[in-house]
Amino acid sequence: MVPALDLSAAELGRRIAARELSAREVVGAFLDRVAEVDPALNAVVELRAEAALAEAAAADERGSGGPLHGVPFTVKDWIDAAGLRCAGGQPAHRERRPARDATAVARLRAAGGILLGKTAAGPDNPLYGRVGNPHDPRFTPAGSSSGEAAIIAAGGSALGLGSDSGGSIRQPAHCCGIAGLRPTTGRVPLTGHFPFICATADPRTVIGPLARHVEDLALALRLIAGPDGADPSAVPVPLGDHAAVRLAGTRVALYLDHPHTTPHPAVVRATHAAAATLAAAGLVVEEATPPGLADVYPLTLDYWRRPESDSPDEWVNGGTFDPATLGPISAEDVERSLFTWDRLRRRMLPFIGAHPLVLSPAAEKPAVPHGEDGGGIPYTLLWSLVGYPAVVVRAGTTVEGLPVGVQIAAPPWREDLALAAASIVERTR
Amino acid sequence: MVPALDLSAAELGRRIAARELSAREVVGAFLDRVAEVDPALNAVVELRAEAALAEAAAADERGSGGPLHGVPFTVKDWIDAAGLRCAGGQPAHRERRPARDATAVARLRAAGGILLGKTAAGPDNPLYGRVGNPHDPRFTPAGSSSGEAAIIAAGGSALGLGSDSGGSIRQPAHCCGIAGLRPTTGRVPLTGHFPFICATADPRTVIGPLARHVEDLALALRLIAGPDGADPSAVPVPLGDHAAVRLAGTRVALYLDHPHTTPHPAVVRATHAAAATLAAAGLVVEEATPPGLADVYPLTLDYWRRPESDSPDEWVNGGTFDPATLGPISAEDVERSLFTWDRLRRRMLPFIGAHPLVLSPAAEKPAVPHGEDGGGIPYTLLWSLVGYPAVVVRAGTTVEGLPVGVQIAAPPWREDLALAAASIVERTR
Repeated sequence: MVPALDLSAAELGRRIAARELSAREVVGAFLDRVAEVDPALNAVVELRAEAALAEAAAADERGSGGPLHGVPFTVKDWIDAAGLRCAGGQPAHRERRPARDATAVARLRAAGGILLGKTAAGPDNPLYGRVGNPHDPRFTPAGSSSGEAAIIAAGGSALGLGSDSGGSIRQPAHCCGIAGLRPTTGRVPLTGHFPFICATADPRTVIGPLARHVEDLALALRLIAGPDGADPSAVPVPLGDHAAVRLAGTRVALYLDHPHTTPHPAVVRATHAAAATLAAAGLVVEEATPPGLADVYPLTLDYWRRPESDSPDEWVNGGTFDPATLGPISAEDVERSLFTWDRLRRRMLPFIGAHPLVLSPAAEKPAVPHGEDGGGIPYTLLWSLVGYPAVVVRAGTTVEGLPVGVQIAAPPWREDLALAAASIVERTR
Repeated sequence: MVPALDLSAAELGRRIAARELSAREVVGAFLDRVAEVDPALNAVVELRAEAALAEAAAADERGSGGPLHGVPFTVKDWIDAAGLRCAGGQPAHRERRPARDATAVARLRAAGGILLGKTAAGPDNPLYGRVGNPHDPRFTPAGSSSGEAAIIAAGGSALGLGSDSGGSIRQPAHCCGIAGLRPTTGRVPLTGHFPFICATADPRTVIGPLARHVEDLALALRLIAGPDGADPSAVPVPLGDHAAVRLAGTRVALYLDHPHTTPHPAVVRATHAAAATLAAAGLVVEEATPPGLADVYPLTLDYWRRPESDSPDEWVNGGTFDPATLGPISAEDVERSLFTWDRLRRRMLPFIGAHPLVLSPAAEKPAVPHGEDGGGIPYTLLWSLVGYPAVVVRAGTTVEGLPVGVQIAAPPWREDLALAAASIVERTR
């Protein structure tokens, strides 16, 4: 890999601003890398090579900018970028080209970021086909921010935006060996997400960053967070600096077994390794199981059964799940589910109060071959249901050489805690 | 009225702390006032006179405390206070005596406030009977924080807590001639509200303060705001100081007519008077109608039709509304309503961005005689649906001598703006 490709987005921005690197050469190197790896991955669905190079040249000429000055980034097909196709992976929308950037895209650009292109949503969708895992293209990158995680892991992009309703940022980060953040619900405006997210009905879906380096998740979050005057679900809660967090003495709940899932041995190993790393850094790791785990799948299935929920499509990746089999839902069922959901949220607060970090597997299994059952994802679904921030970061490797992530969750609005802990795991990997 | 009874709660706290008044004499004066006025009002449903006097004596002995040091307050029957009956106005719960204070009650007490007792919920409920309007007991105080507004307006309490799903703080404040605040949804924990509020289903209901003085709304809000570790819907957004706000030049949208309501002439007069007051203070008042007004009643009715919504009971005050006539609702209807609701919230943001204050009537009519149709309340329902802060403050008087309030709404989390504008209206009334 060309040296620049392995730097963090933050470091690239610093070096370009200091003229140690030019934006032109950095963008060129990433485009070359895309050309090299994407034929096998099929991760990038639209590339704007010429425009990106022109913007890079202009950035070099301008000579200064925001923290992403001249830094290339990519965006999932479910998030609008002006003039580029954004079909949400749906053939019916193959000609959809939004006129405006999503808020998060516009903010990364305003910080100097240079958009390379759009990436496939879903590991095998009818519009774009199958996306390969960069560690072995026969394996799935998981979904639904599939192309985003794959191209970042392959070094073809420094930073990306994905979205996550139940694990769609975190599952691909886990399977591709990179870092991904599900921000607190309400932290990042959803303006420009396609399909449209109706926040009064869906408090699970968020936009968040993916990157090879945890510091880039923190940088991107700082840039994309905060109300935009268009999304009523975005809330102006101050964001802490993860680099200023001191975690020694912080209690970490560790849990692995789930009533509906028994994790793969490589997942168990990686999670214990991360626990040992955090303990060595002075955190107090103790086994403790969050409340309400048995509610995670029923609540999620109830949500999918609701009439205008598009979500089943997102999860039908291995042919193992047919939403039609769920059957219809009554208004009584909707209300009952909302009350159960509320109870889960209530029960979680004292738990997270006692354990401000929760370490768990990211998923039941590492990446599986395309077409095989990817296993359960109750670990990521849990934090989607309560709306808490959660980072997935690589913490191990299977005997076959595939990456294994772990998930670290924190109290609402405390992305800084989760990112600080993920930084520790990342440094000692 | 004994002079102390007319002071603001904030001023009472200052004078008691400075030993210009004793908590014992202040609490005694308010209890005397309750004994004098409540036989005609029937506002107070349980009084803790002896305990309050003992706490006042202890406060005098202690000699220092929070900003409410020694200040008497009251609480609506829908909000728990340890050991006192909290029946939610429902005969089936007449023996319910919660063991713990609601968060908001505990916080006022922790700030030195002395709880006098509980007040009737609803202007005419089956458990407590009819509550009189202190300006004329034959008239209704409106609902549902009926007893709270009545006893505060009558000088029997310095400060109170109510709750508001569609106007339940603001309507009684309007009809009784005091001030009431609906905080931003998520500002004040709902822990200890009875009936239980399921925030995943109900983003309308909030706990907020009522008082004779706007500065007391601001003081109480500062004390009761912020997450409590128990209510997952409470959000840690910083709260601005209304006294530090400079409003000159701020654009105010003024609207009176509503597709479903034509305000009473006295209401029109009071609203125009408030507009003139704000204009004289340098604010830029212009007629502008918020979007989505035609959605307000349909969305509210859809909400009431949802199976586990208790809300119709709250509004069946004049015998004019029978929730059974609404008929059942399907899951499809629920989802469709949530999408319409979300659209209303989206459409409001650019409007409130252009006009950070919205001045309107609080209701179609001033207080009406018990049993008569109180008129429409779309003005307060609107801000409940979008979750924005809104203050009702007295701005006029009918030819019969009844008070007339106006409503001032502000962007989410900007209670400081609404309170600052209400202070201007209050000072020049």
